[in-house]
Amino acid sequence: MTAVGIDAVEIWTGKLKLDLPGTFAPEKGDDPEKYTKGLGLNNSSFPDAYEDIVTMGANAAHRLMERKGLSPDDIGRIDVATESAFDNSKPVSTYVAGCLEQVYDGDFHHANKGERKFACIAGTQSLDDAYNWIKAGRNRGRGALVIATDTALYARGDAGEATQGAGAVAMYVTEDPDLVELSTHQGYGSADETDFLKPNQQFPSVDGKRSIQVYLARMREALEDFESVAGASHPDQYEYIPFHTPFPGMVRKAAVLGYRHMIRGTPIEEELAAEIGELPRPEGFAEDEDYQEAIREYMDALSDTDAYREWYAEAIEPTLSVSREVGNWYTGSVHLARLSALRDAAEKGTDMAGKKLLVGSYGSGAQAEIHAETVADEWDEEIEAIDVESQLDRRYDLSFEEYEEVHDRHNHEKQTELEPFTTPDGEFVFDGWGRMNERKYTYVE
Amino acid sequence: MTAVGIDAVEIWTGKLKLDLPGTFAPEKGDDPEKYTKGLGLNNSSFPDAYEDIVTMGANAAHRLMERKGLSPDDIGRIDVATESAFDNSKPVSTYVAGCLEQVYDGDFHHANKGERKFACIAGTQSLDDAYNWIKAGRNRGRGALVIATDTALYARGDAGEATQGAGAVAMYVTEDPDLVELSTHQGYGSADETDFLKPNQQFPSVDGKRSIQVYLARMREALEDFESVAGASHPDQYEYIPFHTPFPGMVRKAAVLGYRHMIRGTPIEEELAAEIGELPRPEGFAEDEDYQEAIREYMDALSDTDAYREWYAEAIEPTLSVSREVGNWYTGSVHLARLSALRDAAEKGTDMAGKKLLVGSYGSGAQAEIHAETVADEWDEEIEAIDVESQLDRRYDLSFEEYEEVHDRHNHEKQTELEPFTTPDGEFVFDGWGRMNERKYTYVE
Repeated sequence: MTAVGIDAVEIWTGKLKLDLPGTFAPEKGDDPEKYTKGLGLNNSSFPDAYEDIVTMGANAAHRLMERKGLSPDDIGRIDVATESAFDNSKPVSTYVAGCLEQVYDGDFHHANKGERKFACIAGTQSLDDAYNWIKAGRNRGRGALVIATDTALYARGDAGEATQGAGAVAMYVTEDPDLVELSTHQGYGSADETDFLKPNQQFPSVDGKRSIQVYLARMREALEDFESVAGASHPDQYEYIPFHTPFPGMVRKAAVLGYRHMIRGTPIEEELAAEIGELPRPEGFAEDEDYQEAIREYMDALSDTDAYREWYAEAIEPTLSVSREVGNWYTGSVHLARLSALRDAAEKGTDMAGKKLLVGSYGSGAQAEIHAETVADEWDEEIEAIDVESQLDRRYDLSFEEYEEVHDRHNHEKQTELEPFTTPDGEFVFDGWGRMNERKYTYVE
Repeated sequence: MTAVGIDAVEIWTGKLKLDLPGTFAPEKGDDPEKYTKGLGLNNSSFPDAYEDIVTMGANAAHRLMERKGLSPDDIGRIDVATESAFDNSKPVSTYVAGCLEQVYDGDFHHANKGERKFACIAGTQSLDDAYNWIKAGRNRGRGALVIATDTALYARGDAGEATQGAGAVAMYVTEDPDLVELSTHQGYGSADETDFLKPNQQFPSVDGKRSIQVYLARMREALEDFESVAGASHPDQYEYIPFHTPFPGMVRKAAVLGYRHMIRGTPIEEELAAEIGELPRPEGFAEDEDYQEAIREYMDALSDTDAYREWYAEAIEPTLSVSREVGNWYTGSVHLARLSALRDAAEKGTDMAGKKLLVGSYGSGAQAEIHAETVADEWDEEIEAIDVESQLDRRYDLSFEEYEEVHDRHNHEKQTELEPFTTPDGEFVFDGWGRMNERKYTYVE
């Protein structure tokens, strides 16, 4: 079987940032640790006045094509995943292709363009579609460009305001990939939930408490479904476990649930029993309520053990490093977590070739997906070539008043004029509306 | 290679109809033939007060599951294609699954749910994703439920008002399908076009003249791309050629273009030369303008030949029968065209098993896709089991004033109350909003 997976990745962060402990917390009268420790976030990314989901996606894709020396003929499919679309009919991928055609001689007239929507999980769904397209033998030697791009804005004053973010992840999916091979096996946990939605509105209605419960419930179901086809998981099997990261604090909750699940029936559970007791089993309780309470207590104790802390520090914590600095990128978020993990491995000099990742994606509404990835031989060259640090460092640091102006600029109901804070340089920019109210783009040298 | 394709189809029409020559034309002061001959439409379907894209999609899917004796365990994927979504984050497929779970014992918790958007072509894209998923070996013996559902409304007074429609097509995609097998080969014609879009609006902005040109240009590109992998096409190869049908008059234009392309270099072109001259070649003209004019003249003459008229009457005209009675269903439209073709064959008693269809899908914005389908042995039982006629006949016939009320009811900015014209019977209905502004649904026995 031919290996199919991600050959290359590039990211494009919105060019502005909001310092959560330094700028947002004082304005809200909050302890800065509410953000840095509670949510686990230092900064959020925001789009400058001339940026949006199209420019960020096209700029990430352009950077990827330039670095890999790709021409339009190498791309047979362009799929964009987003929950920030500004059109109910025309897909973002057509705008992205239109941008790229401004700077390449060839065109994408024979590429299948599409758009997927399912809250934050659509990026992974698009990756899967690309994988399936190649496995089905329809790609004619070409790869797929998968772009996850979002401007994750909440209404001002909403509890989610501190978790905002904006950016795009572009991935090139091919046979014999240089970065990671995807597994055929997948696990799904999916239910019709009302935890987070945007009924004919730009900013979400969120039931925060419910959303956390749903994330955990669907992730557990997905893991069980994955194990039903791929066999039981064990914590030692996976070097890193990148999860969808709406904010790093959410992943702390998911990680202990995953660990509990994976150690069940293993020597690790037995070794820990002396310290924190046996993992409660439902058959040991007359009432489900008592079982749930016992599980909660066990998980609290588990999360304090050295075994768990060591595993968390190695397999989970390193997946959060980029998210801490950019906030939630919705569809791009889990792909930032994979990137963070592999950057950590490169920094530590770990030999990752052939090692495995377990990737947990999630979208509100709600669905979790779990699959495994095998790291490819050329992963380290690929990771070292990706510009992350300098992009993050170059962002313009907003004052609170400037942040308010930026929020208004990107609020579809306001769309106020705003003088940019940064100067575009070798990138696509939004430059106004056309006669049918379409957004227009140009390349600035 | 295992055959993969459409095992079963069901449709659900909106339960109201507007008589275009009888009710719409007099109100507009138009000659009824403007609609029946010009556009090629007799009636449009509209959703009753308790219908929307979710109820129509869920009802079509429920009917399909009942007829084929399917349970939720048989379905590993639910993809909804629509350009009428009412939520920017939560996909319609989750609502559809929630509806179906009200009437089945099992659930869809391990099914991958998704939503695709690209004007009218997303239904075919979702079909392709389902095909690829099975070919990639990820389906674990299950099939995919693909639902194309739309409420194609235009602003009152818009030129598109007469082409409105509403309905859903549900398709079950499996290995060894009973209806049609899909080809691996596909051709695409795709460009960033501003012909039809909905920038943060429910009703489209349309450049009608441009939209027709773009449809033809992209379809030509797609046919060339298809032939580059599948070999040259010939009119005799395909029993029927179902096209996306925004209105039947559009297909008349596409058909002559397709015929001209397919006869190029064949004995048909030679035979016709005595009657209408040689097909103009670009190399015979100094100016492109002159070549285009010559091509237009040739096509006018071609469309009057007996050879063309016979081919059109056999391969194209029968694909339009359902569309004439329901209007544009956007994502479902090309799938109605396939259904119309096979119903025609069943009525005529044609032995279709093993025969081929060439299917031309299109979405504004813009992209065309062409693929071939091979009719399966059990096609006639499948076609005879599908309820079309009685559904269409049962629709409530609206007066013009009632049509205006229905339009307002489904206008997201108005959402006026409206007493239903029909009584729900064994179907899912919309029954109000929940606390997070989500739409809620119930099953009426």
